Amino acid sequence: MKHAADRQFVVGVDLGGTKILAAVFDSRNKLLAREKKTTRPELGANGVLDRTAECVNEALAAAAVSHPAVAGVGVGVPGIVDTHSGVVRVAPNLHWKNLPFGKGLSKRLHIPVAVVNDVEAGTMAVQQLGAGRRLRDFTCMFIGTGIGGGMVIRGEQYRGAGGMGGEIGHMVVMAHDGPKCGCGNHGCLEAVASRSAIVRRVVTAMEKGRKSVVRELCDGDAKRIRSRILAEAYREGDKLVREIIDDACDYIGIGTANLINILNPQAVILGGGLIEALGDRMLPRIRKSAWTHTIAASAERVNILDSGLGDDAGVLGAALAARAFAK
Amino acid sequence: MKHAADRQFVVGVDLGGTKILAAVFDSRNKLLAREKKTTRPELGANGVLDRTAECVNEALAAAAVSHPAVAGVGVGVPGIVDTHSGVVRVAPNLHWKNLPFGKGLSKRLHIPVAVVNDVEAGTMAVQQLGAGRRLRDFTCMFIGTGIGGGMVIRGEQYRGAGGMGGEIGHMVVMAHDGPKCGCGNHGCLEAVASRSAIVRRVVTAMEKGRKSVVRELCDGDAKRIRSRILAEAYREGDKLVREIIDDACDYIGIGTANLINILNPQAVILGGGLIEALGDRMLPRIRKSAWTHTIAASAERVNILDSGLGDDAGVLGAALAARAFAK
Repeated sequence: MKHAADRQFVVGVDLGGTKILAAVFDSRNKLLAREKKTTRPELGANGVLDRTAECVNEALAAAAVSHPAVAGVGVGVPGIVDTHSGVVRVAPNLHWKNLPFGKGLSKRLHIPVAVVNDVEAGTMAVQQLGAGRRLRDFTCMFIGTGIGGGMVIRGEQYRGAGGMGGEIGHMVVMAHDGPKCGCGNHGCLEAVASRSAIVRRVVTAMEKGRKSVVRELCDGDAKRIRSRILAEAYREGDKLVREIIDDACDYIGIGTANLINILNPQAVILGGGLIEALGDRMLPRIRKSAWTHTIAASAERVNILDSGLGDDAGVLGAALAARAFAK
Repeated sequence: MKHAADRQFVVGVDLGGTKILAAVFDSRNKLLAREKKTTRPELGANGVLDRTAECVNEALAAAAVSHPAVAGVGVGVPGIVDTHSGVVRVAPNLHWKNLPFGKGLSKRLHIPVAVVNDVEAGTMAVQQLGAGRRLRDFTCMFIGTGIGGGMVIRGEQYRGAGGMGGEIGHMVVMAHDGPKCGCGNHGCLEAVASRSAIVRRVVTAMEKGRKSVVRELCDGDAKRIRSRILAEAYREGDKLVREIIDDACDYIGIGTANLINILNPQAVILGGGLIEALGDRMLPRIRKSAWTHTIAASAERVNILDSGLGDDAGVLGAALAARAFAK
């Protein structure tokens, strides 16, 4: 065993509807190793618990860290969680209701487990180690399968009276004739500007005969279209992808402006896979749209920034939660 | 003189772009008298200062309260103000920039003057004496010429890092083909659902030949169309007015849902002249639209309420600010 059993390590897990990411961090929050696994929610809660435990064990093995050296495991879950009891109240993508996830995972790992909301975890990472480090009031927007939001108000994270705030992906921006969203409504920001919405639009256009390098980049398998492929196509100047991503940026800018008009934060901080892969091209366009739609007085002082953490915000935030919980 | 000079009274002023309202309150915040005057911003800052002082004096005379018995005058201004110095930084409707309003008014009245943002004043009234009394986290929406918003977060009013938040009227809800807003953008909530937007739509439809009782109720003078006339036409079953107000309610509901999805407050509290005059008919429709557009988990627990203060929220809040400032 390379590391002594002084419980200086933590593991952060980002549990999504599609994949499980686990990463091991040392006492200075340096990432030592990471592992990835498909989630397979169809296996049910016990199946996903088993796969999460395996993913953590594999990451620990890759980092050559023994179980007794781990202070805690933090898991970010896309849903409403009760961090105190480790119970996942509702997680629609995983089809869970009132699942004692923390208990189930710590029984498998023999390590204390902290369960947090995934966006809350990401926001914590941005606040402690990312672009929000020196800010007292900021708003995060994480763009992925959906669009999630985190708010830091007067130096503290805020999720509303019932802990269910930050659902900025379901802000209606296109009330009249917007596309249908997974939530059942029309014109939600998520339905026009999430990575999944972008992929859906690209695939539909290709099916209708539009040309795009995406077809070759994904070897004809639409399921393979992720942020990296979209970014590559964009950088190669692919007309279809540029059209659709530019359009998404305009809407992300409108969503950003709405947040600025309502909350007037010091900064809106963007994160998630697509921003990591293509932030340098997307941010200028998002800023332009946001500033156009912001009340003049507020626009001057609000920064629109990249989180600086890329796709690691989720695992890092979960690891920070594990450390806070273990104390 | 009826009342002794023990400085137990305060005056609240709601200074709008169209009218000045002043009301005198006793030590238990009971309204003793109120006066109204047109603002006439075209007279310039000194002209408006004179008219504000006159309006305060008339209200004091009506209440039979002498100047020495007044602890302070609070003025709610539609703009960005520095309450500490009494300077109005920007007030677009009044065409003011960096105006030492507090100093100008207290020189005219020989009474201490507190200057606050009008929406901030209204929210303070809702928090201390209205539907927000027992709530720790709520959001206010005041519907009038524009649509303004106030947020109370963890028991304290919040206007963002730069004090310029709460501009919920400029939340874009109709990005694609929304009507033009006074701010220059398209599809702002204010451009589709404020009282002015409603009046504009009614007038345009009548000009195009649509029939409506509004024509008689305003004696053919469109400038006379205010909340009361709209409410009367609605109650009489006027088809055009019902169509337009119902449509506005749907959009107010969408704006309310956006606030709930983002902030997850205990309640969204609606105020302003139109809600006072027609809240019993508008609120059920606003609630229906809001709940349709809210993420299920949040909708259950959030109340959508009338402020309970009618059109007095503004003067009452300004009076409360005067009292706080005088201490």
